[in-house]
Amino acid sequence: MSASYSASWRRGNPRLLLLLLCTIWSTTGLLVQAKVHYHKWDISYKFKSPDCFKKLAVTINGQTPGPTINAQQGDTIVVRVKNSLLTENVAIHWHGIRQIGTPWFDGTEGVTQCPIVAGDTFVYRFVVDRPGTYLYHAHYGMQRSAGLYGLIRVAVPDGVVEPFAYDYDRSIVLNDWWHNSTYEQATGLASIPFVWVGEPQSLLINGRGKFNCSLAGPTAVCNATNPECSPYVLTVVPGKTYRLRIASITSLSALNFEIEGHNMTVVEADGHYVKPFVIKNLNIYSGETYSVLFTADRDPSRNYWLAMNVISRKPGTPTGTAVLNYYPNHPRKSPPTSPPVGPPWDDAAYRFNQSHAIRSHPDYVHPPPLTSDRMIILLNTQNRVDGYTRWSLNNVSFNMPHTPYLIALKENLRHVFDQRPAPETYDYRNYDIHSVPENHNATTGTSIYRLDFNSTVDVILQNANMIEANKSETHPWHLHGHDFWVLGYGSGKFDPEVHPKEYNLVDPIMKNTVPLHYYGWTAIRFRADNPGAWAFHCHIESHFFMGMGIVFEEGVDRVGELPTSIMGCGDSKSLRGP
Amino acid sequence: MSASYSASWRRGNPRLLLLLLCTIWSTTGLLVQAKVHYHKWDISYKFKSPDCFKKLAVTINGQTPGPTINAQQGDTIVVRVKNSLLTENVAIHWHGIRQIGTPWFDGTEGVTQCPIVAGDTFVYRFVVDRPGTYLYHAHYGMQRSAGLYGLIRVAVPDGVVEPFAYDYDRSIVLNDWWHNSTYEQATGLASIPFVWVGEPQSLLINGRGKFNCSLAGPTAVCNATNPECSPYVLTVVPGKTYRLRIASITSLSALNFEIEGHNMTVVEADGHYVKPFVIKNLNIYSGETYSVLFTADRDPSRNYWLAMNVISRKPGTPTGTAVLNYYPNHPRKSPPTSPPVGPPWDDAAYRFNQSHAIRSHPDYVHPPPLTSDRMIILLNTQNRVDGYTRWSLNNVSFNMPHTPYLIALKENLRHVFDQRPAPETYDYRNYDIHSVPENHNATTGTSIYRLDFNSTVDVILQNANMIEANKSETHPWHLHGHDFWVLGYGSGKFDPEVHPKEYNLVDPIMKNTVPLHYYGWTAIRFRADNPGAWAFHCHIESHFFMGMGIVFEEGVDRVGELPTSIMGCGDSKSLRGP
Repeated sequence: MSASYSASWRRGNPRLLLLLLCTIWSTTGLLVQAKVHYHKWDISYKFKSPDCFKKLAVTINGQTPGPTINAQQGDTIVVRVKNSLLTENVAIHWHGIRQIGTPWFDGTEGVTQCPIVAGDTFVYRFVVDRPGTYLYHAHYGMQRSAGLYGLIRVAVPDGVVEPFAYDYDRSIVLNDWWHNSTYEQATGLASIPFVWVGEPQSLLINGRGKFNCSLAGPTAVCNATNPECSPYVLTVVPGKTYRLRIASITSLSALNFEIEGHNMTVVEADGHYVKPFVIKNLNIYSGETYSVLFTADRDPSRNYWLAMNVISRKPGTPTGTAVLNYYPNHPRKSPPTSPPVGPPWDDAAYRFNQSHAIRSHPDYVHPPPLTSDRMIILLNTQNRVDGYTRWSLNNVSFNMPHTPYLIALKENLRHVFDQRPAPETYDYRNYDIHSVPENHNATTGTSIYRLDFNSTVDVILQNANMIEANKSETHPWHLHGHDFWVLGYGSGKFDPEVHPKEYNLVDPIMKNTVPLHYYGWTAIRFRADNPGAWAFHCHIESHFFMGMGIVFEEGVDRVGELPTSIMGCGDSKSLRGP
Repeated sequence: MSASYSASWRRGNPRLLLLLLCTIWSTTGLLVQAKVHYHKWDISYKFKSPDCFKKLAVTINGQTPGPTINAQQGDTIVVRVKNSLLTENVAIHWHGIRQIGTPWFDGTEGVTQCPIVAGDTFVYRFVVDRPGTYLYHAHYGMQRSAGLYGLIRVAVPDGVVEPFAYDYDRSIVLNDWWHNSTYEQATGLASIPFVWVGEPQSLLINGRGKFNCSLAGPTAVCNATNPECSPYVLTVVPGKTYRLRIASITSLSALNFEIEGHNMTVVEADGHYVKPFVIKNLNIYSGETYSVLFTADRDPSRNYWLAMNVISRKPGTPTGTAVLNYYPNHPRKSPPTSPPVGPPWDDAAYRFNQSHAIRSHPDYVHPPPLTSDRMIILLNTQNRVDGYTRWSLNNVSFNMPHTPYLIALKENLRHVFDQRPAPETYDYRNYDIHSVPENHNATTGTSIYRLDFNSTVDVILQNANMIEANKSETHPWHLHGHDFWVLGYGSGKFDPEVHPKEYNLVDPIMKNTVPLHYYGWTAIRFRADNPGAWAFHCHIESHFFMGMGIVFEEGVDRVGELPTSIMGCGDSKSLRGP
């Protein structure tokens, strides 16, 4: 939507207008014509220097981040993916897109599809049914960390207005970046003894960061003047208001983002309108997206920093920066200040508070079911299983089976995964979340949670101490195929007798990704109304790789005939038709 | 076969004995019981330090080189390969094994099978029908360079003696090694501008080399005292005679191998008995195997070097060494001398001469057909095609189709590759092999050479100048599915009117890999008697990747039903049965 178009509707009553438009749309189909957007993507390795240090990246059409997908609500996206990696497979997840009616195109290797084998072409086709800001990224092994990611921006239909106004719409995607390859990272994680890659070398804004080349080895190619690592510049016209769509695709880092000297009004989270609130610093966890508004209302004679800093882990990575350029200053004119260093990284209360502040816009509340049919409590612990360092839920560390769940469920291949139900809860009366896990019976497993179709499910994420004493980490949990209501966050141990009474059932925000804070709990609710098999996992790439995820099944008997293109691995080899 | 056993037959008439044994075997089957050898291999990445520098390697059961396969002639080898690479596929070629009756288990991705997808298990099953020394290695992308290789040793049947005697049988496999990953190497080769990885950092003997850690960068892990890179030690008993099986699996380097101070008698090449000749230095090209005999007849109070040096390219890699340890000296006692530096790297005449010297053992001559039905002349040039640097044969640079040839041919999928015949010759009257290729019409292509079944085919490999002026490289050409007679080598341009008259039709050695020297030609002859589709290519990993190969088809109508396990990629997806 163009800014001027949006502005012209600014003074109308948005709710009334929306109602009117929807009525016209649904009854006549005249006003809005859903479009089909065709994209051809070629996935290949290229040498890239996003932070001036040259390394191999997995690119889309030679680029990382990949191209932004722009569409309007109701449009269909068709992406023809040619895997031109030499020996490596790929799968692409459309993060935040619910895939209603197309659960096979969720792009989650091992859950909804076989990988796209090197040399093969695969066509994703899905509807973007809600406006908002979303992501896409590789969902196979730890391939996301190698650079395959990008944004999806879904506009409201023509004529529909949003509950806020702005002049220009811009977006940025935040990432963290290592110089080691994903293979090295993954091999270390799966080694005895465990080998940790260390903190990321750089933070990237729209694929650009700045590594200190003097720290690179003699054989490294690191060139501080490479245009690929010149900082991203966001040019603004003084006095204008900007919608900034901010997405984090980090593999590890929780981030705090700020626009030096400027307030931000949060208006969207994961595709849902937020009851606006003003902040100077935005905490954003991997897999989350936000829209904020800011006005270029500061001294226009200088430029400012866009800055992000690591939070919730002791930072080992310099501040990531871009330039907020007040027109007509030169875009390369450096701000006269030092980049902001962000809040204290270990201020958990600050992060809890911001999480609490994110509520649904009062005019766009989706009322949650007031009760749920089932409560699953997931204790998040770090464990050792057979000598390997793993993450577990209720003492089970998730192992992906070789045949995707969706295929196994739909085709009734019962031997593919453990048919016993995954554990519903843990011994919350006696477990001490502040102690190092004792871990006597932690195992790996392939069990899943089978949900009654259309039932209402609560999931309580319970954080705890890691293997190392006095340490708990933040985990951003992402649910595929659904948005969920965020009913509450708390410190300490969740008590099923007490805390449900404190749930926000009035104006909970709906999201697809939510943080689980240190030693805390997060309660979400969703309707199991999307037939398919859906991953729910920590969005930290290494944590999911180490077992921090589960899978839900619901209404798989209602899933239509699976496309054979998703088949071809494990026991689905023989199912692959012509 | 144990040395003492062999020794007891030493004085017999080997030919007579062999005839007798074969007769008994073929008529009664009583004397020799073919065995089946089962192997379970798990392919995974591991951090390895073969030259003290730690990097990721593709390993078999955690090892590189992989386990040696030992068998007797006529035995069946069954290898159950579990691909435990996270996101990467694999295929394993049994180099030198003709796969008579099992062309689908040649392990050549794109020619005889689809890759084994990450997570999958594939079972190779084939007969080793000739005694001798062979190799196995990855045959997919440039994966071989990542460490997946090993030896196959096939002994003569019990009671059969070979035309030479020795006390002990030992083997070594030679390799070159880079610190860059194969992905980095391959991406550079396929980039515009072309990026060359540079000369290998190390030469490895039985997977052990020694990089100078002081040259490693600050972030590298390089530990000169790591036992993984302690030199290989070959302990010998003074006065005893050793058979040393020497195989080269280098990705790039032609090597010159020597045992300091000791003569070697060459007795086997690529599984064929050689008319023995004595040398101090053995030239060995990638894909070749030799057996040499040497006697520990030098001053026993010291140890000696086993050494290899790069030849035919300007060396940028230090001498590779191992220790010849005279018992009872301490195996770690360093030889008092400096490691041999080998012959001048650019002495082409020396290499031509040694190639000429390799003749069939007079008692084991397989007489070649005296005439051929077809002569294919292949001009080897380096070209630019669409801006990419490529290697071409008769101006066509080979591109592997996504559906393997064997499947396409057998199932008559004609659209999979260009059905027009590949070019049979070049303009040898006018082409100047000493000039930089003009390359006006070089292209990439998927055409193949279809051979009349049971016909006799001559292939003339013609070397020429590269893109760089005054430069020609050595190319070791390897033929799958066959041994060929080596009819001759020459300098300069092959003349079909003249040079065939100079062919050695008396005692040509049979081989599966043969060098093509600088600005020279090599003539080979083979019988197209093995139904299947067979690659014939330069065994330099980067050269084949850049198009230096062709494919022969013969008697594909006689190929039995293909196992569905080789299918699943490209247009063979729908053919994959249960």
